[in-house]
Amino acid sequence: MKIVFLGTSAMVPTRERNLMGLLINYKNENILIDCGEGTQRQMKLVKISPTKITKILLTHLHGDHIFGLPGLLQTMASSGYNKTLEIYGPIGTKKYLSFIINNYINEDKISIKVKEISGGTFFKGKEFSLIAEKLKHRIACLGYSFIENNKIKINTKYTKKFGLTKHPLLGNLQKGKDITYNGKKITANLATTVKKGKKITVILDTETTNNIIKFAKDSDILVCEATYLNNLKDHAKLYKHLTAKQAAEIAKKSKSKKLILTHFSQRYKLVKDLEEEAKKTFKNTHMSKDLAAFSF
Amino acid sequence: MKIVFLGTSAMVPTRERNLMGLLINYKNENILIDCGEGTQRQMKLVKISPTKITKILLTHLHGDHIFGLPGLLQTMASSGYNKTLEIYGPIGTKKYLSFIINNYINEDKISIKVKEISGGTFFKGKEFSLIAEKLKHRIACLGYSFIENNKIKINTKYTKKFGLTKHPLLGNLQKGKDITYNGKKITANLATTVKKGKKITVILDTETTNNIIKFAKDSDILVCEATYLNNLKDHAKLYKHLTAKQAAEIAKKSKSKKLILTHFSQRYKLVKDLEEEAKKTFKNTHMSKDLAAFSF
Repeated sequence: MKIVFLGTSAMVPTRERNLMGLLINYKNENILIDCGEGTQRQMKLVKISPTKITKILLTHLHGDHIFGLPGLLQTMASSGYNKTLEIYGPIGTKKYLSFIINNYINEDKISIKVKEISGGTFFKGKEFSLIAEKLKHRIACLGYSFIENNKIKINTKYTKKFGLTKHPLLGNLQKGKDITYNGKKITANLATTVKKGKKITVILDTETTNNIIKFAKDSDILVCEATYLNNLKDHAKLYKHLTAKQAAEIAKKSKSKKLILTHFSQRYKLVKDLEEEAKKTFKNTHMSKDLAAFSF
Repeated sequence: MKIVFLGTSAMVPTRERNLMGLLINYKNENILIDCGEGTQRQMKLVKISPTKITKILLTHLHGDHIFGLPGLLQTMASSGYNKTLEIYGPIGTKKYLSFIINNYINEDKISIKVKEISGGTFFKGKEFSLIAEKLKHRIACLGYSFIENNKIKINTKYTKKFGLTKHPLLGNLQKGKDITYNGKKITANLATTVKKGKKITVILDTETTNNIIKFAKDSDILVCEATYLNNLKDHAKLYKHLTAKQAAEIAKKSKSKKLILTHFSQRYKLVKDLEEEAKKTFKNTHMSKDLAAFSF
């Protein structure tokens, strides 16, 4: 599992930082969250082909988070993307995409399924689920959680005691069902161990709200915006953004394990100050950097 | 006078080349021709503020030439652009801009005047004119010429013979009118010298056509697309693009002084081959490079 940061700047690109975009890679799944202008070139720089993208999640429809989408879709279309691309986003996503696709991506075709969502579990697959949560920004905005399904493993040391090694009945144990083998009862509870799935939560563009804590609860990785230092907290509140301190408080209260900050105002050339501020509240804080990947 | 190449790649960005965009700088005038995705960041890299832009000319409405416009306009708006931005382009330009401006650039305002053109002189100022010409691409596409006005200088050696040094009548001579001073006739023809204005012509996205030669006639600088090598001339014709050889032929036939090639297919990592091909036909050929400026 890997998170690749394609752009980490808020509002405008800087010499060092492109506009927002990050990719969650999990096996063959590549989920792009937001697509600021220039995202497709950033993908070129980290050598990830746009044709590998399986889903795109948009947090909100401010330009700095979506103006890279038309170019990316065009490149995917002209590169012979042969799956159906799923795009999820808040209300308005369909209107934006319809206009672009109908008018400017008509030479090469791409199959797209757009779903406007407002919160809750919107994807439930064999290996992971995706959940959205309403945030509080100047326009409709969503936070996202990627939750890997729990893995249930057979406790082979235990089942061997019953002479049970390879057998279709093991599947029942994995589904949590107790079984009887050679007249003996084997309980799923003792015969299996649960490996909890990883949880990644991405919180961009919001002011601090209570529901975020519950939403981000127990995240292994919390990616969170930290547009400003806390000395600009009134400014942050006015524009409905977070400070580094507030992001760290969310990480702490939600009992997240690791915090990665992103979406920095262009005024901070070096983000050392933001990092130090956050670390005072939440020690395991890391700073995102364009084209950097966090594997775990 | 300066031409800055902001992006030089065709269709998709590469690691080395961004999508199309070039800037003609003439005194306080900054004319941006095309605005591919990522143009605003390229401007950051060459330290040209978007607020300095005075006019934007679009050659055509294919995504790789226009998808950087929404982000650029948003940044100009949020940077307090206080002039009226003039945008010229082929039919469809208004529709694209209206959708973007009305839906996605509404927090900060920017004053824009959009004019759809189909050819001819569309701007005539005190210092230069701008002329458009229909090209032959898959959709409506325009070539552009920037023509500096001729400068008429007083031949002071000659006028001194008549005792005429500083005098309002000199203005008449500069306007080409003969005058009488102290009873003697002074002809504008002998009393002035004409310094011919520079001509820059930009030809992007077209197959080769006869009208280009006339349009580019006597250009000091001809910037011309050269998407392919001539061994792909059938492919070039199919997609209505030029080969390096064809671009060089246009430069030669139009008696242009200097040719700068741009808009290279991503298949050419090194553009040496394209340069060599063009130079066989037109020696004074140069290759554009991202973030490079040509001053003259």
